[in-house]
Amino acid sequence: MKVFTITTSKRTQFIPLDSYIEQFIQETGRKNGIVCVYVPHTTAGITINENADPDVLYDIEKTLDTLIPWNGNYKHAEGNSPAHVKASLMGSSVQIIIQNGKLVLGTWQSVFFCEFDGPRTRKFYVEVIPTQ
Amino acid sequence: MKVFTITTSKRTQFIPLDSYIEQFIQETGRKNGIVCVYVPHTTAGITINENADPDVLYDIEKTLDTLIPWNGNYKHAEGNSPAHVKASLMGSSVQIIIQNGKLVLGTWQSVFFCEFDGPRTRKFYVEVIPTQ
Amino acid sequence: MKVFTITTSKRTQFIPLDSYIEQFIQETGRKNGIVCVYVPHTTAGITINENADPDVLYDIEKTLDTLIPWNGNYKHAEGNSPAHVKASLMGSSVQIIIQNGKLVLGTWQSVFFCEFDGPRTRKFYVEVIPTQ
Repeated sequence: MKVFTITTSKRTQFIPLDSYIEQFIQETGRKNGIVCVYVPHTTAGITINENADPDVLYDIEKTLDTLIPWNGNYKHAEGNSPAHVKASLMGSSVQIIIQNGKLVLGTWQSVFFCEFDGPRTRKFYVEVIPTQ
Repeated sequence: MKVFTITTSKRTQFIPLDSYIEQFIQETGRKNGIVCVYVPHTTAGITINENADPDVLYDIEKTLDTLIPWNGNYKHAEGNSPAHVKASLMGSSVQIIIQNGKLVLGTWQSVFFCEFDGPRTRKFYVEVIPTQ
Repeated sequence: MKVFTITTSKRTQFIPLDSYIEQFIQETGRKNGIVCVYVPHTTAGITINENADPDVLYDIEKTLDTLIPWNGNYKHAEGNSPAHVKASLMGSSVQIIIQNGKLVLGTWQSVFFCEFDGPRTRKFYVEVIPTQ
């Protein structure tokens, strides 16, 4: 397992992780398997979506903000309950198949760290499970 | 890893994948492990839900359409941002335990490919990770 | 794989599973790998979120109820369609990395069984995939 650290600069931010993940896969020397990318936070998540037109990420951010408004009627005193809800909606990990030492992502796909309560220093974990 | 191709016929459509997945598990000869089913698209997802009463899938589709209306105020020029949001909400992969060469799904569960921007030709990937 | 049984006491309830999962990991004797925790139901899910302030779980429950009201206009005659939608939004499994025989959860994280149509007797499955 490897721990990566990233720094976010906005309350909500989607940061592509593909290059970090591929670097780790190369370090392991594994050619085939599954990689698990895990976010150990409760106000950040992880998702796979389009990395071509940045308007896609903008629309995802705005849609989540419309559904789960920051200034709603929440009980949690810290004031960041919307970030907790969004974290559970996106999920804490993604699994991607590795073939010949490469992630088999779709043409338009990238893995994104989803910051929902930044800016902060954040971590994510990467582990490879071999299939043979 | 095996690549499967399916064709969808509507904008939103849930297609059961259990028989494809079980076919692949049999081909691998693996008796115990985890199967990972992965969707390499950004306007389609994958989920596990009820395959008995089709009204359940109808209600899931309609609820998502109510929350994330197709004709909303989106920036992405291609016009399919709701499909991108729904893809991230459902997720890009499912993991299911294999015992004695069979998926250990619950009584009412099936795995569904979630088309959110069809009709299209789509792919999904299946890989088995052995536990022993 | 091990099957655990739990009993829920309310329609919506988040039950921490960490101690069950860690017990199973110890039984396997595995030191490194990935654990898969799987919910075989279609009106219950699983998520990872904060286990410090119970108001966080309260806010997640209420936000989901606001987005997907129990008394909406649903077609499924059993009347529990909101529970099916919430199950797909949370997901059917989580994957967590194991190091030195321990779950590497974040400081504030716990794994929660998400009951959305209780009270009921429920099951969840736990399986460990070794990385070496």
